Amino acid sequence: MTPWTGPTLEVHADHLRTPDQTLLPFELKWLRLDSLLSCEQALREMQVRGAPLIGAVAAFGLAFGLREGKALPVACERLAATRPTAVNLRWALDEVSRALSQAKGELSRAEGELSTFASAPGSAAGSNAFSRAWQRACEIAADDARINAAIGHHGLALLRERMALRQTLGRPVAPGAPLQLLTHCNAGRLATVDHGTALAPVYAAHAAGIPVHVWVDETRPRNQGASLTAWELMQAGVPCTVVADNAGGWLMQQGRVDAVIVGCDRVAANGDVVNKIGTLLKALAAREAGLPFWVACPTPTLDFTLPEGALIPIEMRDARELTHARVRLPDGAVVQAELMDAAVSALNPAFDLTPARLVDALITEHGAVPASQAGLLGLNSRSSLSQ
Amino acid sequence: MTPWTGPTLEVHADHLRTPDQTLLPFELKWLRLDSLLSCEQALREMQVRGAPLIGAVAAFGLAFGLREGKALPVACERLAATRPTAVNLRWALDEVSRALSQAKGELSRAEGELSTFASAPGSAAGSNAFSRAWQRACEIAADDARINAAIGHHGLALLRERMALRQTLGRPVAPGAPLQLLTHCNAGRLATVDHGTALAPVYAAHAAGIPVHVWVDETRPRNQGASLTAWELMQAGVPCTVVADNAGGWLMQQGRVDAVIVGCDRVAANGDVVNKIGTLLKALAAREAGLPFWVACPTPTLDFTLPEGALIPIEMRDARELTHARVRLPDGAVVQAELMDAAVSALNPAFDLTPARLVDALITEHGAVPASQAGLLGLNSRSSLSQ
Repeated sequence: MTPWTGPTLEVHADHLRTPDQTLLPFELKWLRLDSLLSCEQALREMQVRGAPLIGAVAAFGLAFGLREGKALPVACERLAATRPTAVNLRWALDEVSRALSQAKGELSRAEGELSTFASAPGSAAGSNAFSRAWQRACEIAADDARINAAIGHHGLALLRERMALRQTLGRPVAPGAPLQLLTHCNAGRLATVDHGTALAPVYAAHAAGIPVHVWVDETRPRNQGASLTAWELMQAGVPCTVVADNAGGWLMQQGRVDAVIVGCDRVAANGDVVNKIGTLLKALAAREAGLPFWVACPTPTLDFTLPEGALIPIEMRDARELTHARVRLPDGAVVQAELMDAAVSALNPAFDLTPARLVDALITEHGAVPASQAGLLGLNSRSSLSQ
Repeated sequence: MTPWTGPTLEVHADHLRTPDQTLLPFELKWLRLDSLLSCEQALREMQVRGAPLIGAVAAFGLAFGLREGKALPVACERLAATRPTAVNLRWALDEVSRALSQAKGELSRAEGELSTFASAPGSAAGSNAFSRAWQRACEIAADDARINAAIGHHGLALLRERMALRQTLGRPVAPGAPLQLLTHCNAGRLATVDHGTALAPVYAAHAAGIPVHVWVDETRPRNQGASLTAWELMQAGVPCTVVADNAGGWLMQQGRVDAVIVGCDRVAANGDVVNKIGTLLKALAAREAGLPFWVACPTPTLDFTLPEGALIPIEMRDARELTHARVRLPDGAVVQAELMDAAVSALNPAFDLTPARLVDALITEHGAVPASQAGLLGLNSRSSLSQ
């Protein structure tokens, strides 16, 4: 089979195609998304997941809703309700809504000048709204790929620095020994339209011939590390090793990690990071071991409306994600099975908060900045996408 | 079914009975151990596990070896090789060996006095050695239960203090709200001959009518928390909730934990603790949240021969423990299945090191002491088992 190296979201004339991420790594099956409902379900069931990808799919979902004659606020509400933590979702819905208002404003001005437009039928207005929404969704998707490529570029610079620095640190490094990175959850191609966020610098390093090896946290309870990150790294030929989420502290303690790099679901104005549950523990371990902890952060993931991370809602998900798992039996059948006695009480928070002080850099498409209000405000003064 | 509340090791006239811990929580099946080989296999396959239980079973295994006519060093070697990290195993083998030397010395002295003993046939000497070894193994097992009861007593005092203290801390506590403890892996009844180590204070609190709730870390990759700790707490009627290993940091951050309590596999002379992989991450999170981190530590788990924890060997186990799991299918069948694509590379360190500075107290059978050389040396001046 040809290795899969993205993109994760294929935009066709009137529908989307994207891998069903609940089936990986056992099966690569493409979903067809062509309606508000199909997008809504794919988001809720986490067939598509990852903050940037969620944003893009939500934008298209809104366009589909308009095509189906749904009222804008209704469609927005339905999509926003699918996942409470990722800000990209709300950001993307706002972006599409803003584009529609703008188009309406232009249309109104045009109406004032050319009376022929005043009699445009409702269906045409609906069709116009769909076109404008679709266009903006396409831009959001294309921007995401561009943003992530830029994050790869800026992250690669950090990796190169770290590679050079480790020669000067205490522990001897064999010539040609790969740079050892640890990542949590999946912030790779599968979390985005293309390239990934946390993995974009990894792919950039691999492409540049820099030897790199990734420690992949299993990422319980949904196992995105073991099922998605390991899968896409193997598809791309990047050496990686899966470890239990528990093992990262030991690996860092043993000097077997050079840096930790993760994605994020929402970053507050002060640089606090909300990301997959367990991220905080890795940030603490990195600090303990004196290792850099980097967060790949596309600017649509920034939420300047919230002064600190404690205000970001944390999604609580079904306990079955913990008690059950999709497993492959010796005969090849893939089934849902109990990992523990389902009679246990279980709690399943999906995200945690890593305080800004534990984050060494936010790698944005405009460059790496300190995880602080000052660092984030500095972004405003930077020019558009550097590449 | 009658709830199971221990003991974990039943000592019969010429054999042992103990639950096969690889089958829990789906099946409670008792193993019969009656030979060196059966003990060796049960230890290696982790049908019996937990540092104190490992020690007791190894002691009986040595006695069985002598009964089978095996040479002492050979039997010791075989048992010691089953698990490299738990010091109780070596300690128990040394204890039995010492008892045998002592008996031999007494016999030699007796031989000098009574020439009738000089002609004792080899078989009688072998039988004597077995009797002495069996007797010492019985003492080790009985001591373990006694030690753990004492740990329960001293730990309960810490829980009572914490219960009183939390009224004075910032966050308001509802009257009658349970004390919230978090534990990692299984340091309960199933890890010991009886009572447990980290869970002994929990059972003591429960028996004393103090409301307590335990957050149970799943404890990947072998899931001892979800499979063993939750099971035995439920059997005993102690409220508990399973969480992913990743969730502990968030729970502590949210003020939903009052203290963390874990067991240990080996403690060095300076108070460094080696325990189940992932313990370090919880210790770091507890320190971050300003919560006490307690380690229940029977003195046989202390290794005064090692000045610091970095010298303790860390057992690396089969990657299949991570890639595969024992699961229950909808039809009730329990099978081994792939959790991830078994083609992935995976690494499975079984333990990590928590530096003494992150440990607020070692709860020994002689009382709670600081995790430091001074704290541990102070144990020498304490009288024998309090209780």
